[in-house]
Amino acid sequence: MREVAIPEAPVTVATEVRFAETDQMGVVHHSGYIIWFEMGRVAWMKAAGMPYTEVADSGHHFAVTAIHAAYRASSRFGDTIQIITRLAQLRSRQVEFSYEVRNAADQTVLATGSSEHICVDLVGKMTKIPLPIYERLLDGALRVAAANSNTVS
Amino acid sequence: MREVAIPEAPVTVATEVRFAETDQMGVVHHSGYIIWFEMGRVAWMKAAGMPYTEVADSGHHFAVTAIHAAYRASSRFGDTIQIITRLAQLRSRQVEFSYEVRNAADQTVLATGSSEHICVDLVGKMTKIPLPIYERLLDGALRVAAANSNTVS
Amino acid sequence: MREVAIPEAPVTVATEVRFAETDQMGVVHHSGYIIWFEMGRVAWMKAAGMPYTEVADSGHHFAVTAIHAAYRASSRFGDTIQIITRLAQLRSRQVEFSYEVRNAADQTVLATGSSEHICVDLVGKMTKIPLPIYERLLDGALRVAAANSNTVS
Amino acid sequence: MREVAIPEAPVTVATEVRFAETDQMGVVHHSGYIIWFEMGRVAWMKAAGMPYTEVADSGHHFAVTAIHAAYRASSRFGDTIQIITRLAQLRSRQVEFSYEVRNAADQTVLATGSSEHICVDLVGKMTKIPLPIYERLLDGALRVAAANSNTVS
Repeated sequence: MREVAIPEAPVTVATEVRFAETDQMGVVHHSGYIIWFEMGRVAWMKAAGMPYTEVADSGHHFAVTAIHAAYRASSRFGDTIQIITRLAQLRSRQVEFSYEVRNAADQTVLATGSSEHICVDLVGKMTKIPLPIYERLLDGALRVAAANSNTVS
Repeated sequence: MREVAIPEAPVTVATEVRFAETDQMGVVHHSGYIIWFEMGRVAWMKAAGMPYTEVADSGHHFAVTAIHAAYRASSRFGDTIQIITRLAQLRSRQVEFSYEVRNAADQTVLATGSSEHICVDLVGKMTKIPLPIYERLLDGALRVAAANSNTVS
Repeated sequence: MREVAIPEAPVTVATEVRFAETDQMGVVHHSGYIIWFEMGRVAWMKAAGMPYTEVADSGHHFAVTAIHAAYRASSRFGDTIQIITRLAQLRSRQVEFSYEVRNAADQTVLATGSSEHICVDLVGKMTKIPLPIYERLLDGALRVAAANSNTVS
Repeated sequence: MREVAIPEAPVTVATEVRFAETDQMGVVHHSGYIIWFEMGRVAWMKAAGMPYTEVADSGHHFAVTAIHAAYRASSRFGDTIQIITRLAQLRSRQVEFSYEVRNAADQTVLATGSSEHICVDLVGKMTKIPLPIYERLLDGALRVAAANSNTVS
């Protein structure tokens, strides 16, 4: 397995801000973005043809080992936001995704971030990413990158 | 197994309102109380000598089949609240708890409610409450009731 | 202002179950449905032409005074669910919505419920629903009902 | 205002893991730790004599500009966890806190992290930390550090 980064393959998913996601500052609580990042990588994996549900069904999980988030602007109830996700790194035992959250209406960048994951089995023990999962992620990333490239050109 | 209600056995647990639990109205979001109810019944079961962790470890869960909540006053970040939980009903296949949420400082009732549960096994199939669990709940309720009675008298 | 119920005006919104919404039973935590109900009434109000954002911008809120939920079946990460919302009651000072949550794939009813609301101003004091808001809700409900009726016939 | 770091002033707060905080992996969802970090800094500020409620009441907020979290081990429903919080940096316009989350029973480090904050006013505009708040934070940090030093020696 090679160590690869395929930043050319962003996948975008949109969602409406839920009232319950706001806090008394009148904006979305910062923990909400961490859940949006998760929605982003779930959407990325689905678009890449390796849905996370199938990873879970195979008895594996991509446990989160690190989260980084930088908050630049607020989002509010009523806003539609976009989560743009990229596969930042794919190794034999680790995956890293990067994220950009934008206001859909004016494309303001609200937050950027990344998440690092290791592969664990059902009892939480660290394992190699099973080869079929690794390959489907890699193939999917290349296919998404190609599709994006076609769209742009 | 008898059908029993032991309302004389309230158990109180206190918690500080988390900033993340507020919404843009400046008060705790109504979904937060549903999670407080859960904290209440977890505390009740612990006090009764039948911790929910042991129910789960035995391969069972008390799946929620109904929730009722009436909201009377708001709680805010910085408040300490109390959750007062009672075993409202214990049957061979069902458990019901009732709740009162109070502001700890002035004892204002913020919300009342109840939750109904059936016993399910690990694959989610409805089962009788295992006899040892049923008996420990019943004995615990009686012991909590007796302890409260002693405290009051 | 009349007291009206317009159950003929359901509005449906769909969402994908988030991984973060699951609990250790492997299904969506029951508190998640309370937030889905909220998404349902937000969608209903938007479809009816009286978006909740405008209620909030006018300095009012529909504070929740009661929640009832009955849970019939589980939902899981990866499922798409539908929230079908109806205006169950509209009075001068109160609104009530009812909900049905379905699995989008097979139309299984996962949960039903309702929420009751009073109108409050910015400092949380109960007020009449401002007439323009009341009328837009009523007109919207009738328009949604008519649209549904056209769709069905 | 000086730029100061007072790592000698940790404040510890403990909490029991809520069932609702778990996910289908059977452990606490990683977003839960972000909310625990918040509980940690709220506890730190309270112990330092500058409760966050008073910052909010003065019309200011410490908006989160960055979050970093490294996850080392899991926590489960039933666990009691400790959040150990330090003031990592205090500047005229910024505050940084660092965190350690431990399992209370065996002192395993579950996660470490930090949060960066700017001071904003009620409309979300960045401002200097008001001098009285800055000074109370600084004095509090020194007092907590002194108290800890006395405890250890």
